[in-house]
Amino acid sequence: MERSAVNREIPSHIEGYGDVAGRLYEGAFARTPSGYRSGPRIRSSSPHDGSKLTGGVKEAIMAAGVKSGMTLSFHHHLRGGDHVVNGVIQACAELGITDLTIFPTALFDVHKDIIPYIKSGVVSRIMGSVNGAIGRLVSEGGLSSPVVLRSHGGRPRAVISGDVHIDAAFIAAPAADRAGNISGQMGRSACGSIGYAFTDAEYADVVVAITDNLQSYPISPISIPGVYVDLVAVTDSIGDPAGIVSGTTKVTRDPIRLLIAKYASRLIEASPYFMDGISFQTGAGGIPLAVTAFLKEAMKRRDIRASFGLGGITGYFVDMMKEGLIQKLMDVQSFDLEAVRSIASNPSHIEISADWYANPWNCGAAVNMLDVVILGATEIDMDFNVNVCTEADGALLHGIGGHQDTAAGAKLTIIAQPLTRGRIPCVVDKVHTVTTPGEVVDAIVTEFGVTVNPRRTDLMDACADFAVSRRIPLIPIDELAERAKKMCGVMEPIRTSDRVAAVVEWRDGSVIDVIRQLEK
Amino acid sequence: MERSAVNREIPSHIEGYGDVAGRLYEGAFARTPSGYRSGPRIRSSSPHDGSKLTGGVKEAIMAAGVKSGMTLSFHHHLRGGDHVVNGVIQACAELGITDLTIFPTALFDVHKDIIPYIKSGVVSRIMGSVNGAIGRLVSEGGLSSPVVLRSHGGRPRAVISGDVHIDAAFIAAPAADRAGNISGQMGRSACGSIGYAFTDAEYADVVVAITDNLQSYPISPISIPGVYVDLVAVTDSIGDPAGIVSGTTKVTRDPIRLLIAKYASRLIEASPYFMDGISFQTGAGGIPLAVTAFLKEAMKRRDIRASFGLGGITGYFVDMMKEGLIQKLMDVQSFDLEAVRSIASNPSHIEISADWYANPWNCGAAVNMLDVVILGATEIDMDFNVNVCTEADGALLHGIGGHQDTAAGAKLTIIAQPLTRGRIPCVVDKVHTVTTPGEVVDAIVTEFGVTVNPRRTDLMDACADFAVSRRIPLIPIDELAERAKKMCGVMEPIRTSDRVAAVVEWRDGSVIDVIRQLEK
Repeated sequence: MERSAVNREIPSHIEGYGDVAGRLYEGAFARTPSGYRSGPRIRSSSPHDGSKLTGGVKEAIMAAGVKSGMTLSFHHHLRGGDHVVNGVIQACAELGITDLTIFPTALFDVHKDIIPYIKSGVVSRIMGSVNGAIGRLVSEGGLSSPVVLRSHGGRPRAVISGDVHIDAAFIAAPAADRAGNISGQMGRSACGSIGYAFTDAEYADVVVAITDNLQSYPISPISIPGVYVDLVAVTDSIGDPAGIVSGTTKVTRDPIRLLIAKYASRLIEASPYFMDGISFQTGAGGIPLAVTAFLKEAMKRRDIRASFGLGGITGYFVDMMKEGLIQKLMDVQSFDLEAVRSIASNPSHIEISADWYANPWNCGAAVNMLDVVILGATEIDMDFNVNVCTEADGALLHGIGGHQDTAAGAKLTIIAQPLTRGRIPCVVDKVHTVTTPGEVVDAIVTEFGVTVNPRRTDLMDACADFAVSRRIPLIPIDELAERAKKMCGVMEPIRTSDRVAAVVEWRDGSVIDVIRQLEK
Repeated sequence: MERSAVNREIPSHIEGYGDVAGRLYEGAFARTPSGYRSGPRIRSSSPHDGSKLTGGVKEAIMAAGVKSGMTLSFHHHLRGGDHVVNGVIQACAELGITDLTIFPTALFDVHKDIIPYIKSGVVSRIMGSVNGAIGRLVSEGGLSSPVVLRSHGGRPRAVISGDVHIDAAFIAAPAADRAGNISGQMGRSACGSIGYAFTDAEYADVVVAITDNLQSYPISPISIPGVYVDLVAVTDSIGDPAGIVSGTTKVTRDPIRLLIAKYASRLIEASPYFMDGISFQTGAGGIPLAVTAFLKEAMKRRDIRASFGLGGITGYFVDMMKEGLIQKLMDVQSFDLEAVRSIASNPSHIEISADWYANPWNCGAAVNMLDVVILGATEIDMDFNVNVCTEADGALLHGIGGHQDTAAGAKLTIIAQPLTRGRIPCVVDKVHTVTTPGEVVDAIVTEFGVTVNPRRTDLMDACADFAVSRRIPLIPIDELAERAKKMCGVMEPIRTSDRVAAVVEWRDGSVIDVIRQLEK
């Protein structure tokens, strides 16, 4: 057994993952690389080559030389509407290919269709976020190898460093041409940014664009140039538009959540970062959107303009840019129709790769430039450690997303969350899973006020000034935990076996925690 | 001695270059790679890192850790207005750094300021195009190591394959922000596309952006993201706008050149490629622009639209796109003010890297999609081999540019050139230097008509149909050479020593020819 810097017991060797000794989490910025990036497979081409176009998904799999035991990568910009993962896995099964490692950025409920293929051994390993049904299957021991969870920045880091070698990347392409130039911005399956797919295209041995919208050469704009793309498969539909983008993302109407949002926005206003040029990431949740709405009023009142909004981009940010309150948007994932339209038409709306967004192992990702991020949690503990992966019953139901990356990068990392969900406490003595260490979490905001990490005495002082005028109730972490205990009573302990069902990597590739299989 | 496939005698070993055996030119598409790309140096970053901003050029050189013996790369989008190469070399000299290899995309007359530093040993090796004064110096033995000439596609190939390792890249940045995001499209030194610099940024051990236009983070659009950029040096001026872009590129008014252009345009019209969706690269010369003007009329007459224009882009192409005659422009270098304005404002005007433009060792460069290219030459011979590097006196005065790449990629490669320049013949028995092999040259057009490479019987037939109506005079290569001889008399042979002053690489990294030092 080893013990990580966040005090977690982790086996020295994890079957199906490897040795942990030597790559144990030692601190948010402790591990730095040396040497050189992994070199992608070199190709050559001539004007006399045959076409890159293949018949359909199955033909593309054959042309790509996919074999049993290989690692296939996918990206999740088509979200709940994605047809590509299921289509590729089913075709592999029909071709008799087994023992695949899949390396998606994220799987959702729509991908529960691959569960039979997990059970039959077509898919034997998953490295990527497993949301919902597949996560539950994993928690219950349904996969023989542990899932490896990485953040949006940790994933490209793993690829460029050689931790993960992609045999074949399958890129869902809302638009493509016969040379393999890809864009996410046009077509019936338009999803806006396809930032998560960039590194896969650059590093995979074989890159397959799967499109339902083949256009004449050259398309423009081009997100991923055809110089990285070996094959283009044309299929009837890569996704269901209804599942790809939501209509509009909406601010919460729940009074408790609105109160939390108000406190969070006041905390930001009290902070030293609330000045012209402020930058923030707020995501698409109800509370963060409400924080943005309150902030927007404060910005107008104090004549402040933001330099950029980052991350998953919503129509709310797009509107703020149109109103001149945000100057630029840096978009790794476009959440709604308005964001998709904006990225396709406004040069100030910049498509960024996951590497650019969040990779700790390049010359400086966008998260490092971030002032404020509002994040959620399933649990937070007395050390400010945050769990976003497992639910109260210990089941792995959520991926890391950009949580680790933005928390580490931003000057002010705020977890905004009601203290309880039903009878389940969100603040506990010890989180079941450490996704993000307290070292990079600055404050928790609940309906009871603001809880500042004691390490941030500057923030305490800033809030205290506000507190004098009674605008920000301050509540220490132990009082908050005590209150949660009173509200929810003592929780049943989660019963797990020793077997590791999932490994949680910190964004630098070290192991910060493991998620153990649930006992029946 | 070895003998290349174009029948050139090449030493088996070239001092200062290496062994030639095993990398002798064997044919335009003979050499294909295996294995993996070179891995760029891996970096890491955190929000607690210091600023990337350094004081000026000298401070940046120190911060980059530049030492004697290193390889420094540059790009030439600032052309005759560039201040960056001279500034960096002078600062290196002042810092006592010597024995540098410089790896520019191209050097021009403005760079003759570095000649004293070549003589004093600050610069001991050049890999890149040497136009004008520095070329003459090299031809006369002024550099101890041979210059290595590579095409626009061969250069990124050399970098990604590991043939060339860049210790530090200095990128002239018409606009940059403090995170190192770079654009060529804004500012007083705007040059449009900075496509030649992309691969350097991705592969160099240290990347320095040198800018005279630091803007707030994040700039947009961004050509090279700051994730590749280690340092940002701010200086008063990176270039002289008058030398960076020409006012307007003009069609020739010379009647002989107009006649050549007319014949070339008729050849294109007669070819099977003159149909809707045709694509072409014509460059900025007087004859090619005139070809474009004639083609434009033919396109209107026959209701044909081009899919894309490629390469160095001029206002002439921009106007054709505005008129709907060209759908897209793919721009690796913007030649004039109109092109600079267009790339900054029109999403159909696409910035492409040199890798994307022309590298034979990726999944397929844009040149492979090209129908027609119009190129020039200093000499063409009976085998249709083309020389663009050395002049009639044997002096190395020009780089390869995209000549090899487009000739190899295009379906119809036309050399359009007057038969003589003054009393110097352009068609000869044997070119002094083979830049581009006859294997990829389809036709020569002079004021005497069209000379089709006998290999292209299909083109002969197509032209013959036209010839019946007397619109394209056809003249065989031997008659053309005979005519040149009659006009110019017998030329004095060029007298060279055995010493190799420059190596001409074919785009795949094989040695196609060498340029020997001139005898005094």
